[in-house]
Amino acid sequence: MSKVTIRHVAEAAGVAVKTVSRVMNGEPNVTRDLQDRVMKAVDALGYVPSMAARRMGGSRSFLLVALNDRLNTINNWRSGRGNDWIDQMLHGAMLTCEAHGYRMLFELVEAGSDDLDRKVVAILSALQPDGIILTPPHSENRALVEMLTRRQVPVARMGVRGEGLGFGVFMDDRRAAEEATRHLIGLGHARIGFIAGSPRFQASRQRREGYADALRSAGLTVDEALIAPGDFTFESGVAATERLLALPDRPTAILASNDEMALAALHVASRRGIGVPDLSLVSFDDTPGVRLSVPGLTSIRQPISDMAARAAELLIGVSKTGDATPSDHLLPFGLEIRGSTAARQ
Amino acid sequence: MSKVTIRHVAEAAGVAVKTVSRVMNGEPNVTRDLQDRVMKAVDALGYVPSMAARRMGGSRSFLLVALNDRLNTINNWRSGRGNDWIDQMLHGAMLTCEAHGYRMLFELVEAGSDDLDRKVVAILSALQPDGIILTPPHSENRALVEMLTRRQVPVARMGVRGEGLGFGVFMDDRRAAEEATRHLIGLGHARIGFIAGSPRFQASRQRREGYADALRSAGLTVDEALIAPGDFTFESGVAATERLLALPDRPTAILASNDEMALAALHVASRRGIGVPDLSLVSFDDTPGVRLSVPGLTSIRQPISDMAARAAELLIGVSKTGDATPSDHLLPFGLEIRGSTAARQ
Repeated sequence: MSKVTIRHVAEAAGVAVKTVSRVMNGEPNVTRDLQDRVMKAVDALGYVPSMAARRMGGSRSFLLVALNDRLNTINNWRSGRGNDWIDQMLHGAMLTCEAHGYRMLFELVEAGSDDLDRKVVAILSALQPDGIILTPPHSENRALVEMLTRRQVPVARMGVRGEGLGFGVFMDDRRAAEEATRHLIGLGHARIGFIAGSPRFQASRQRREGYADALRSAGLTVDEALIAPGDFTFESGVAATERLLALPDRPTAILASNDEMALAALHVASRRGIGVPDLSLVSFDDTPGVRLSVPGLTSIRQPISDMAARAAELLIGVSKTGDATPSDHLLPFGLEIRGSTAARQ
Repeated sequence: MSKVTIRHVAEAAGVAVKTVSRVMNGEPNVTRDLQDRVMKAVDALGYVPSMAARRMGGSRSFLLVALNDRLNTINNWRSGRGNDWIDQMLHGAMLTCEAHGYRMLFELVEAGSDDLDRKVVAILSALQPDGIILTPPHSENRALVEMLTRRQVPVARMGVRGEGLGFGVFMDDRRAAEEATRHLIGLGHARIGFIAGSPRFQASRQRREGYADALRSAGLTVDEALIAPGDFTFESGVAATERLLALPDRPTAILASNDEMALAALHVASRRGIGVPDLSLVSFDDTPGVRLSVPGLTSIRQPISDMAARAAELLIGVSKTGDATPSDHLLPFGLEIRGSTAARQ
C-alpha cells in the first residue's frame, strides 16, 4: 500500500526505530509526548507497518486461536436460544489476551469431519498461533490433541482433564450434578426426575453419575423411569418433561442437564397448569435466559469465562517461558439458588 | 519455526508450487487426490507456511475486522443478561467471510476515549484488514469513519445510514417502533406506555419517534407521562415499569426499547400480581431470553446477523473490485408475535 518505512517515521519524529515500533504495537511505558510525536509522523507520512514486519522481531505471533465446533455453534446461533458459550469464552479469553498484548481469533471447525486435521493444519499455517484453545467436543478429541502436540503447538483443553496431554481446564460436572441433586433432596424431594444431555459430551455422562451419586448417598434408589433422554435442545426438553410428568407417580422436582431443556420444562409445566416451584426445577449452565425467566431458575453456574481466561493465561505463559509441561486445572462451579426450587409440598 | 519451504513441499508431492499454495489456503477446485498428496508432503516435512508468505502473493489480507464498543460489550458479558449482539454479528459476518476465504477478527475499542484513533491505527497497522465493520456507537462516529476513509480503509457501518460516507447497513428503527405500537393499537390498547432506550444511541430516539408516529396516526395523543426513561439495563426497566404501573390511569400495554427492560417489566408485573398479557408487553431485539420466557414476548426482530453478513459482503466486494462507492442498504425487520400481547380486556 505504501512505501514509507518505519525508518522514515523514526526520522520524521526524531526518535529511535524501536520507539516507533513500541508505539505502533501499543506497548506500555511510552510517554504521552513520544506517542504524540510518533503518531503525528505516522499520520503525516501515511505509514502502515505490516504484521509481517512486526513478526520479524521474534518468533511469537501474539495470537491465540480457539477452535469451536462448527455445527454446534452455527446451530446455537441459528436457533437464537441463548447458549452464550461463545460470549463467555470470548469474555475470558479476549480480555486475558488483551491484558498481555495478545489477540484472540476463534475458528469454527467441524468435529467428526474427515477434513478436520487438514483444516486445523491450514489454520496453523495461515495464522501461526502461539497456542490453541480447544472447546468441547474438540477438547475430548485425543487424536487432535496428539497431532497438535506433535507439531509443538501448545494446547489448552476446556472442559476436560488433560491427563498428561496439554493443559486441562475444567470443572467437576459430576460433583456439580451431585450438589444440585443434594439441594433438591435437602428440600424434601425424593422423586427427582433427570433430563440427560447429549451422549456426545463427556459432561453429560458425568452429570448423570453425579445425580445418581447424590440419590445413593441419601439412601434413595435410582429409578430408571425418572431418567429421560435429551440432547440439549428445547424440543428434547419438551419430550423429556412430558414423559416425566406423565408418570403415574410423577416427580416433584426435575434436574435438567442444560438451560434450554430446563426452560422447556418450565413451558411444559405452565401448559399443564403445574406451577414452578410447585414442581421444583434446577438447571445447568446459568445462561442469561434462566436468570431473567419468571421465576428465575436455580442453576449450576459453569465457570466458562474463568476456564477460558485460565486457558489463555497458560498458553501465553508457554510462549513466554517455553515450558509446556502438561497440567490440570480444576475450577470451582457455583449453585445459584433462585425462585424455581422450594420445599416439597 | 521451520526452514522447510513451499518448494520442498511441491517437490516432495510432485506438484507445482501454486498447487501447494492453493491447498494450504483451502481454495476450492483442487482434486481430492492432489490435496492428499500435498498434505502428506506437508506432514512428512513438517512444513508451516507463514501468513506473511501468503500475503506476498497480493495486497489482500483476507481479513476483516469488526470494531465493537469495549465497555458495552464487557458489561453485557459480565451481566450475563443475554444481549446476543456479538453472537449474531459473528453469525452473519464469520459465515460470510468463511464462504469467501476470509477471516473475521473482532476487536474491542472504547467509544469516546481520547485514545480511540491511536488504538484503531494500531489495529490497522498490526492486521492490515481489507475492511472494517463498525457497530454502534462507533458506526455513528463520523470523525472515525472519516479517518478510516482518509486511510483508504473500506468501512461498513452497522445500524446507521452511511449518507455518502462508507456503506450504511441498517433497519428502520422508527418504522419498527411504529409497527409495534400499531400492533398494540390494533388490539384495542389506547394507553400504551413506552420505556425509552439510552440516549447514547440514535436508535433510541428513532424508536421513540416511531411510537409517537403510530399514536398520532391513530388519532391518539402522546402523553409524556406514559414515556419513561431507561438506559437498556434491567434496573432501568424495573424503575420505568414501576413508574408506569403507579400512574393513576395506568397503561394497558407497554412497549420497551429492548429485551432486558421488557423482561424487567415482566418481573415487576408478576411481583404486582398483574398477569401478562392482561398487561400487554412488546419488546425490541428478539434476543434468546424473550423467546424462551413464559409467556414468550412479542418482539421486533432486528436483522443483526443479516446486517453483519451484508457488511462483510460489501467489504469483500471492494477488495475484489476496488470499487468503494458509498451506498446505503436498508434491511427488513420482523415483528414476532407471541403470548405477551392480547386484546385489551
